[in-house]
Amino acid sequence: MPKTYKEIHLANRPEGLPADEDFAFIEKEIPELGAGGILLKTLYLSVDPYMRGRMRDVKSYIAPFELNKAITGGVLAEVVESNSEEFQKGDIVSGHLNWAEYNVSKGKGLQKIDPAAAPITARMSILGMTGLTAYFGLLDIGKPQPGETVIVSGAAGAVGSAVGQIAKLKGARVVGIAGSDEKIDYLINELGFDAAVNYKKDSFVEDLKAALPDGVDVYFDNVGGDVSDAVISELNNNARIPLCGTISSYNSEGEDIGPRMQWKFIKTSSMMKGFTIGDYAKDFPKGAAELEKWLQEGKLKYEETIVEGFENTPDAFLGLFKGTNLGKQLVKVADPEFAKL
Amino acid sequence: MPKTYKEIHLANRPEGLPADEDFAFIEKEIPELGAGGILLKTLYLSVDPYMRGRMRDVKSYIAPFELNKAITGGVLAEVVESNSEEFQKGDIVSGHLNWAEYNVSKGKGLQKIDPAAAPITARMSILGMTGLTAYFGLLDIGKPQPGETVIVSGAAGAVGSAVGQIAKLKGARVVGIAGSDEKIDYLINELGFDAAVNYKKDSFVEDLKAALPDGVDVYFDNVGGDVSDAVISELNNNARIPLCGTISSYNSEGEDIGPRMQWKFIKTSSMMKGFTIGDYAKDFPKGAAELEKWLQEGKLKYEETIVEGFENTPDAFLGLFKGTNLGKQLVKVADPEFAKL
Repeated sequence: MPKTYKEIHLANRPEGLPADEDFAFIEKEIPELGAGGILLKTLYLSVDPYMRGRMRDVKSYIAPFELNKAITGGVLAEVVESNSEEFQKGDIVSGHLNWAEYNVSKGKGLQKIDPAAAPITARMSILGMTGLTAYFGLLDIGKPQPGETVIVSGAAGAVGSAVGQIAKLKGARVVGIAGSDEKIDYLINELGFDAAVNYKKDSFVEDLKAALPDGVDVYFDNVGGDVSDAVISELNNNARIPLCGTISSYNSEGEDIGPRMQWKFIKTSSMMKGFTIGDYAKDFPKGAAELEKWLQEGKLKYEETIVEGFENTPDAFLGLFKGTNLGKQLVKVADPEFAKL
Repeated sequence: MPKTYKEIHLANRPEGLPADEDFAFIEKEIPELGAGGILLKTLYLSVDPYMRGRMRDVKSYIAPFELNKAITGGVLAEVVESNSEEFQKGDIVSGHLNWAEYNVSKGKGLQKIDPAAAPITARMSILGMTGLTAYFGLLDIGKPQPGETVIVSGAAGAVGSAVGQIAKLKGARVVGIAGSDEKIDYLINELGFDAAVNYKKDSFVEDLKAALPDGVDVYFDNVGGDVSDAVISELNNNARIPLCGTISSYNSEGEDIGPRMQWKFIKTSSMMKGFTIGDYAKDFPKGAAELEKWLQEGKLKYEETIVEGFENTPDAFLGLFKGTNLGKQLVKVADPEFAKL
């Protein structure tokens, strides 16, 4: 067992796209565990677009990261030492923990994972927060009906790809918006989307209209910005828009300006509603069970883009804003010591 | 009985604020009534902000007015000749009719009014479309709860003043936004609003924050634009925004640009929904009955601004955009021939 480990601190509050100097790798000593303590070896880290918001010093639905302290996020880890009766060496857990090679914990907030039920990384994607975000936002706010048109932006990402597949399971016609021809191909040929549009092409607005011959009934919005302006011009009467994210603006300084949209909502009696996954905390077990069932029945696919090496965590995070990921972006930090996966 | 009458045609599609030359007063002959026909003498005309939208040649929830044809809107009229068994001389009716001194009808779409139950003009305001717009938008979309803060823009108008009073009946704290000190005084001292803010003052944004110590739970939006941007910055978690109108932009050419709002909805899990009164057509009798009950119990007040003279109809309409009206803006065209009001 090593005596020291590295963790990643927020060194500066970034302006625009974060850069290397905004992250500091700090060497720390592994402390005494104490009574009830457990030592967790990080296997995988999750990097997520919402974390960019926490790098700003502004009030939001979740507190900002503190400067010169560890960045925190979703972590899959192995218990490698334990003074707790609840946890044994070799247990795999997920939790909201430091971006670090090791974490010390008393077990609070950790969830044990059965590696036999599904690949453990699925707990960070389709069976975890991103799958649940898709599930509740689409079904509770979007309420897609058979034959309706559902369109999703950020469609090749972890949330978007789940949204599209769940909408298909509900009998909707599904259109995706993504940023490369490779992603368009994946959406149509791997995930079974009915159409997909590349927002980086000059012909985006025309392509979008062509992909929406019957307009839009549900728009699951991960991106905001110009892309959303274009979709909102295609709303049918009584359209519903679950607002999940605005990744197009996460690295912008200054105000995000665009056409005011109220009139478009009035003339179509349409609705938009923001949400964060915490709104549905009490229903997580129900959502996770249904997602796991669909996964086991082969009705849901998911993709992971895995970067190897703890030192590449900032790059993996920045890749989210460059669109380099297909599906869920993870960092593989280490192999387990005891568990067989 | 006269042989001719005047009606008002749309002579041009206005750019910006409509002007005199956009309206033409056309003299017409009163035609033969024919079997089942009735002749209606206009007593009052309703002028409403939404009519500006119908002067544009764009698709919306209601068809555009045709050039060189009569403008149509809400009319209170007296039956002065009748070949119909359903209608007698002296009956008072409301309907969607031409802006004209006389209309000929077969009775379709007309509603008979009992002048003894309430002043007939109330059927064009608190007991008519504007009252129902307030009632359904606030209660079905806004869903105000006791102790919550409800804010309404265009608060001294026909819809806004009803919204505020209904919200008070539901136990909410009510804040109004209006454009003159006279209106602010009216909202607080006549209608019992808890606070009211003048959006034309330089201190509007600070005044607004001061009037909202507990934030915003429901924002009934009649105006859009800068005023709504400011209110949307004060949303509480799970706020609801019924979108009724965007009067601030009805006379604008070019695109209405402002800060994109999706992020503010995500971080507060808030919702906005557009509506038009037609969405609630099947529930009109229920809404009208409850409004009439509240009115008879003295729980609702309403104000009318009445311009005298058919020739002043365009001016009365334009006054809506200058904010010269308090409550419902009507035009008195004539006194009845037979009915005693």
